[in-house]
Amino acid sequence: MNSQSSPDIARSPLTVEVTRGPIVESRHQVIAAIADADGRLLRAFGPVDTPVYLRSAIKPLQALPLIETGAADAFNVTEKELSLACASHTGEPIHVEAVTEWLNRLGLGIEALECGSHWPSYDVAARALAARGETPTAAHNNCSGKHTGFLCTARHMKEPLKGYIGLDHPVQQRIVRVLEDFTGLDLAKAPVGTDGCSIPTIAIPLDRAATAIARFADPSKLPTERAAACHRLQKAIAAYPEMIAGSERLCTALNRAAKGRVIAKVGAEAVYLAALPEAGIGIALKALDGTTRAAEVALGALLDEFGALDADMHNAIDRFVQPELRNRNNMRVGELHAVLPPRTES
Amino acid sequence: MNSQSSPDIARSPLTVEVTRGPIVESRHQVIAAIADADGRLLRAFGPVDTPVYLRSAIKPLQALPLIETGAADAFNVTEKELSLACASHTGEPIHVEAVTEWLNRLGLGIEALECGSHWPSYDVAARALAARGETPTAAHNNCSGKHTGFLCTARHMKEPLKGYIGLDHPVQQRIVRVLEDFTGLDLAKAPVGTDGCSIPTIAIPLDRAATAIARFADPSKLPTERAAACHRLQKAIAAYPEMIAGSERLCTALNRAAKGRVIAKVGAEAVYLAALPEAGIGIALKALDGTTRAAEVALGALLDEFGALDADMHNAIDRFVQPELRNRNNMRVGELHAVLPPRTES
Repeated sequence: MNSQSSPDIARSPLTVEVTRGPIVESRHQVIAAIADADGRLLRAFGPVDTPVYLRSAIKPLQALPLIETGAADAFNVTEKELSLACASHTGEPIHVEAVTEWLNRLGLGIEALECGSHWPSYDVAARALAARGETPTAAHNNCSGKHTGFLCTARHMKEPLKGYIGLDHPVQQRIVRVLEDFTGLDLAKAPVGTDGCSIPTIAIPLDRAATAIARFADPSKLPTERAAACHRLQKAIAAYPEMIAGSERLCTALNRAAKGRVIAKVGAEAVYLAALPEAGIGIALKALDGTTRAAEVALGALLDEFGALDADMHNAIDRFVQPELRNRNNMRVGELHAVLPPRTES
Repeated sequence: MNSQSSPDIARSPLTVEVTRGPIVESRHQVIAAIADADGRLLRAFGPVDTPVYLRSAIKPLQALPLIETGAADAFNVTEKELSLACASHTGEPIHVEAVTEWLNRLGLGIEALECGSHWPSYDVAARALAARGETPTAAHNNCSGKHTGFLCTARHMKEPLKGYIGLDHPVQQRIVRVLEDFTGLDLAKAPVGTDGCSIPTIAIPLDRAATAIARFADPSKLPTERAAACHRLQKAIAAYPEMIAGSERLCTALNRAAKGRVIAKVGAEAVYLAALPEAGIGIALKALDGTTRAAEVALGALLDEFGALDADMHNAIDRFVQPELRNRNNMRVGELHAVLPPRTES
């Protein structure tokens, strides 16, 4: 347990403070990179060359082959289903029903999903399931939409369905190629971990992740078909924000209020990627300690810094990005806020 | 949101690493102090003069007036109830029933509790409640045992029952005196926040918190009646470890396996206090980012460092303090481990 020597601990001037009464009770450090589609780093907080598992934040790029292979058109995949393919959803009935219906159209059942099962992350949905005497299936897994998209692609390409989660399977190899295209990196030697849903997750330096999501935001210099696929996913997420997450989730509130001006996606261990199509920039961030509350607050602060939040968007997302802390008697006992260094210091 | 200047960010050489595949995915910094009952600081990690809200970790000291006022004896409070008075419980039936029965003996109902309500933190208990068509009451609040102890004391002292959560109420003032006695500090100007259950939480430098819990561990130099009260609480927690937390909780597993050799209590925002009666020392720690997983792993490492864990205890607690990360298909995808600097460096 104590045998390893600790490498230098990364630090960042971008912090999220959790206050209670007169003092800061806890503090998070967040690394963040903001880049444009040409790979120019516009702003950096902390060591943004650190390889970061992007986890589910990269799902919109993982969904590109679903469109680019022709699978989406061949199986009449709807906009709602495209949003679901990019989702970390809350396991609510709208998600589970949509996954089941899409699988049926592929001639498949829930047992084809290799993501494993877990109780819905949205407590109300989990308790409702329990109250009906049911237990969760793989369709309730927050990644079930992405996995259904993988199965749809594999079926269209006449590839084996079994084992589609393995790094060597064509489904995953196509995603590696997409990530190499968007980051400009050779990922053959990049660190590879296994995600919660059992697919590979590839560590990518945060500055290149920002570039990748900037290219998704502004795909004008990409091949025409790829650019069209990016626009189609952006449109789908903006049109069906409830499918990409669910009740009481920042991704849904933000993508709904932004109406396409911001496409944002969270990943486990406090990653956020955000595409700003109008500005043609991408934001990539990670709270070093892996705490989602910090990633949400930092994302709000960076969107604000870039003038990406209007009053309606603030109304929709401030309870996530500038939250009050309220206790069990609903008394206000503290707050979370981001602390950004002045622009000249970064 | 961005207007505040950030103070220097505390750092600590004690870290908890979260690995996935070949790399560290997230990292926590933990400050910790180990002291004896004479106030000697035996070991320090990071800035241990930082005032820290001890939150629920301090509950064993908050329970002392229940015994010292004579309330426990006057109302035939059992050992099981004394453990419950120190608890952050999981809202399981054993906790809720014990609170209800104790309140009844005081001639009170659940509505006397001023802690507010929330769904049980133990998912299985929450879903079982939902499956029965019920919703949680204040008895399900993880602090309901402590609050029942407060009501018991107030009733015995013939003090107003209403408003017992206020800093000026004698119940809370007695606790302030206990904390001043144990820390040796004048707390009149200490930062005071409001806890989740609405009582005051007082920020105390971590080194003095370690001294306080060392004095609870080895009360031999305290007045006889106070020493007896400390021993009585230690014995109660060791005898009824399921009451101090519940299913799938480190506090219960550790206090059970330790059989009185360690008395440990978690607090919100990643605080842990541990009393080691045989060695006469106290451990106080806080993960700076407020993440409980880091506090648990760090506690295990520090207990190990002081030779406080035998094989049985390791068996009981390693899944909390040296956890594997397993995904939704139960594949091992990573682990958490503490990284301690060598003793000479601290």
